[in-house]
Amino acid sequence: MSIRRNIYLNMKTLKQARQILFERFSLSQPLLKETISVPDAVGRVLAEPVFAVISSPNFHLAAMDGIAVTAATTFGASETRPKELVVDTDAFYINTGHVMPENTDAVIMIEHVNDMGQGRVEIEAPAFPWQNVRKVGEDIVATELLFPHNHVVTPYCVGALLSGGVFRVPVMKKPKVLVIPTGSELVDWRKTSLETLKPGQVLETNSFVLGKLIESWGGSFVRHEMLTDVPEIIKQAILDAVNTDFDMVLTVGGSSAGSEDYTRNVIDDLGRVLVHGVTIMPGKPLIIGAIKDKPIFGIPGYPVSAIIAFEQFVGPLLSLMLGQPEKQRPTVPVEPTKKIASKLGVEEFLRVKLGAVGNRIVATPLPRGAGCITTLTQADGIIRVPNNIEGLPPHEPVTAELLRPLSSIKNTVVVVGSHDNTLDILADQIRFGHKNLTLSSSHVGSMGGLMAIKKGVCHLAGSHLLDTQDGSYNISYVKKYLPDVRVKLVNLVLRDQGLIVLPGNPKAINGIEDLGRKDITFINRQAGSGTRILLDFRLAQLGIEPSWVSGYENEEFTHMSVAVAVLSGTVDVALGIYAAAKALNLDFIPVVTEQYDLIIPEIFYESENIRILLDTINSPEFKKRVQALGGYSTEKTGQIII
Amino acid sequence: MSIRRNIYLNMKTLKQARQILFERFSLSQPLLKETISVPDAVGRVLAEPVFAVISSPNFHLAAMDGIAVTAATTFGASETRPKELVVDTDAFYINTGHVMPENTDAVIMIEHVNDMGQGRVEIEAPAFPWQNVRKVGEDIVATELLFPHNHVVTPYCVGALLSGGVFRVPVMKKPKVLVIPTGSELVDWRKTSLETLKPGQVLETNSFVLGKLIESWGGSFVRHEMLTDVPEIIKQAILDAVNTDFDMVLTVGGSSAGSEDYTRNVIDDLGRVLVHGVTIMPGKPLIIGAIKDKPIFGIPGYPVSAIIAFEQFVGPLLSLMLGQPEKQRPTVPVEPTKKIASKLGVEEFLRVKLGAVGNRIVATPLPRGAGCITTLTQADGIIRVPNNIEGLPPHEPVTAELLRPLSSIKNTVVVVGSHDNTLDILADQIRFGHKNLTLSSSHVGSMGGLMAIKKGVCHLAGSHLLDTQDGSYNISYVKKYLPDVRVKLVNLVLRDQGLIVLPGNPKAINGIEDLGRKDITFINRQAGSGTRILLDFRLAQLGIEPSWVSGYENEEFTHMSVAVAVLSGTVDVALGIYAAAKALNLDFIPVVTEQYDLIIPEIFYESENIRILLDTINSPEFKKRVQALGGYSTEKTGQIII
Repeated sequence: MSIRRNIYLNMKTLKQARQILFERFSLSQPLLKETISVPDAVGRVLAEPVFAVISSPNFHLAAMDGIAVTAATTFGASETRPKELVVDTDAFYINTGHVMPENTDAVIMIEHVNDMGQGRVEIEAPAFPWQNVRKVGEDIVATELLFPHNHVVTPYCVGALLSGGVFRVPVMKKPKVLVIPTGSELVDWRKTSLETLKPGQVLETNSFVLGKLIESWGGSFVRHEMLTDVPEIIKQAILDAVNTDFDMVLTVGGSSAGSEDYTRNVIDDLGRVLVHGVTIMPGKPLIIGAIKDKPIFGIPGYPVSAIIAFEQFVGPLLSLMLGQPEKQRPTVPVEPTKKIASKLGVEEFLRVKLGAVGNRIVATPLPRGAGCITTLTQADGIIRVPNNIEGLPPHEPVTAELLRPLSSIKNTVVVVGSHDNTLDILADQIRFGHKNLTLSSSHVGSMGGLMAIKKGVCHLAGSHLLDTQDGSYNISYVKKYLPDVRVKLVNLVLRDQGLIVLPGNPKAINGIEDLGRKDITFINRQAGSGTRILLDFRLAQLGIEPSWVSGYENEEFTHMSVAVAVLSGTVDVALGIYAAAKALNLDFIPVVTEQYDLIIPEIFYESENIRILLDTINSPEFKKRVQALGGYSTEKTGQIII
Repeated sequence: MSIRRNIYLNMKTLKQARQILFERFSLSQPLLKETISVPDAVGRVLAEPVFAVISSPNFHLAAMDGIAVTAATTFGASETRPKELVVDTDAFYINTGHVMPENTDAVIMIEHVNDMGQGRVEIEAPAFPWQNVRKVGEDIVATELLFPHNHVVTPYCVGALLSGGVFRVPVMKKPKVLVIPTGSELVDWRKTSLETLKPGQVLETNSFVLGKLIESWGGSFVRHEMLTDVPEIIKQAILDAVNTDFDMVLTVGGSSAGSEDYTRNVIDDLGRVLVHGVTIMPGKPLIIGAIKDKPIFGIPGYPVSAIIAFEQFVGPLLSLMLGQPEKQRPTVPVEPTKKIASKLGVEEFLRVKLGAVGNRIVATPLPRGAGCITTLTQADGIIRVPNNIEGLPPHEPVTAELLRPLSSIKNTVVVVGSHDNTLDILADQIRFGHKNLTLSSSHVGSMGGLMAIKKGVCHLAGSHLLDTQDGSYNISYVKKYLPDVRVKLVNLVLRDQGLIVLPGNPKAINGIEDLGRKDITFINRQAGSGTRILLDFRLAQLGIEPSWVSGYENEEFTHMSVAVAVLSGTVDVALGIYAAAKALNLDFIPVVTEQYDLIIPEIFYESENIRILLDTINSPEFKKRVQALGGYSTEKTGQIII
């Protein structure tokens, strides 16, 4: 096997590369037009200015319920000298929205009309001309410009267009983009089962992400079948695309400078490489090319690189083609929670978690690997570290682009840790009183919660970690695993843990001691969960080896999952909370009452959101709902443990 | 015909009505779930937390192109004492993304490998364990929580889900909403030609607007055929809907308190009316009801009322059903350009045009009629005038909700003043070349434009004010009314003003001198408009008293409106521009050629936006389009007058 060293062709900065791209394609062929029905045009871009065909209203209409009159006939009416009108001669009963009878020019509100019977009405004030009348063209005048070209049709526009007698509109065809995933290691998830996945096979995901991004930027997306790293095959696929009606081609993978990175040479053969390599991170191995006046992108294969390359180049080019301004994310000043190192000469797109602490927004960097898509899915924002500086100092404001609305970031309490059903009650109870405050909880077990606190990626963690030395909960774990974080520990609930069995307890299970029985199968909770620690402790106390417990090695992540396994007959017994058993009408054999606490770092403890959360925990309504569940005690609920 | 007075049932404030709605339905039946493929789930709400099935990467992978080695075998290598390795025994060539060979734990980058030939390579530095290796689970660990329930799936999420081996996800079914348009006057645009539209027939548009709003708030929409105002028929349609799988029903129209407003009684018969009438404007005649635990809304029939009612009640309820926080529009402080009157006890949703002038954002109110959908399509923002105050003073900051991004508002040139059709051409032509720049024009007459310049609430004004002393245009007015503002005056067009009459000129009108005739009715333009000044000047020249002109006191605000009055037969003659007559196929008797100029304060004259505008005015493309309209001359177009 030989290695051919491929060198980047004169790397460009982000700004230079964007300029090259936009200048090259700003004057290319405009998109084709298509004419579609108005409701279908929502979200589409008008290809021509659109003018009203009819006026709205199209006739003079009554704007009130009442009588239509000719104003002149009412002059002189007063309280002292009311005027009588003859119905269907001088006065015509009319409802809102109905056409004014001929020769009438005003409506008197029904409240101001005295029905005298026998076809006569009386009024006590004159009408002035055109009062309570919607005149022809009040909203839209025939022939007026409704929307200029390049206007994006909104739901509101549908009303104006249809009212103006415009039922179909010319819109720009969506730019059609072909995405070609390349790489011999790739497999299609739609044709694969996870069980048969071989070592080295990788699920191809980029094309689906890029496809959805293309759609959200106004394009249409076709996925080419995956191609192996054979230049001739890739070349033919690109050639077929530029010779048909595709407006743009993205190849994914193979854009770097390694031995199997053929994309640059392929584009060079077919057209021209404009840029190879951009000084950004992630996203460096990007290729921009032109074949027959059509843009071709070699998109890097790491998922975050692919997305950054898309958002900086492909998406903005789609906007340009559609006559739209470039999308801009809202920005906010944030304070990094720690020093952020960076490389001179490289512009970095750093993914960060944001949290409102006091009146600051603090930013915690997420891992920087271009291969980790979760650094984008977990991010609230992106800090751009410019290429002319070496790192950002902590606590000095920098600008972050927002991936979620600031209001949502400010109104989210992030809970990570052990699962308990009362967290759902708490979330619900909080939203009941504070509609915009959200509790976002992730269930990763008690130890997982402690680690999340340590990384600064949550506001609080739920935990029920038993100290098998002294029978206390959580305190010793906090001291051991969070020596550098000052935290408060607040009790949420006391709860019963016990064995969950089918109704009537058919296998006659009495306690943990029965788990070693040969005729019983068990399902376990994951390592690091408080329930697992409790089980292991009790097994050790009883002298039962884990290997004697049939099913010990099968793990589930929540109380509900193990209860479902019992209900479905997959296993005979599980260890879990009463609430889970009750929810599925299963029997429950109590084993222990344990303490479930919230671990709250002191920097968040005084915040408004945590105050609301603690107030809710201390409220009688919350405690009442918890008690109604059964299997819980609220006698320590809200108590500050440390 | 008899009128039955229906009285609102204990009107509620916005806040009260929302509270009643959300409390009634916060604990209703949860939405059903459905399981769909991950790419299809973009934009949908997860109905359950989703956990990873496999890790990503699923095997140890090379993170660089190079050689895979066992770190321990490289220890001791240095520049002075390089170490030789045997290919395919101690060292394995590997590309980025490929699986690490068994028993290797590090990758040395290809740049640091010397190929010695004959199956041997040399390295000058040791590798440390796991360098340049993406370990199993670096991105995602099997069984970890990927996304909590209620999470909205984004394109990024697609990457994380597929990488974690999750190919299908449980999402909440879209709330299914039936929209029933009611009203005997309605016609379906899909089954109508404009030519056959009869007096009093109205195109039904609300259901299509509401449908698109429902979709954009996450629901699915079914449109019921239109129903006439017969209570039994409406009742049956609602009953059919609540007995099937609809989650919500909207009836449109008939929600007020008039003789044909049956909705309240229908809901009362089938279930319970919770609210009838909310103290908001537009949107007052709203009904909120519950039938069999399902929400029913009686939506007002005026288009703006319908939209406000939707956005304040229906949309937020959809969000609540989907476990989402309520959508919040971004807000910005703005300065009203004039005093805004308002009614105590009513919360008004005032549509405004916004413009960045200097470093302030100024807000100009649009017409307030609930029947005018264009007040929403033209609006940049909404000012909420609270119910406990009477009006807003001018120039004091208030909060506006943004309907367009602030960046787009900042790229808008605000024109206030006299109306001319070539402004529409100019707006369109500017967007053609400069997709980020918008021209927004408000029509308040020439004097109104001068006042807007004086108050600093626009970037430029269109004006055609005749100096009756010397026959010049605009210069003397600018000197008189804007003594303290340095402005430039640039000609836009010369245009013909004349009398607009029905085709064939049935009343044989020859000139302004005929306006005094007894058999002729006229419609005027508003005081302060250039056309009005021209009329008054010519009447005075001819010795005709305004009181001799029948209809002199009836004013309209645009050329098109007076032309429509002629077309509809309301009046016999109007004074206006040729373009208005031509658009409606009316006859035109030229009276004068006048000069229409743009007044531009010098502080804006040098700005980039105005430069683009002036370049466009001077372009042959713009002049050509103006000439094609007829009734215009471009011989002075673009000339700087002062």
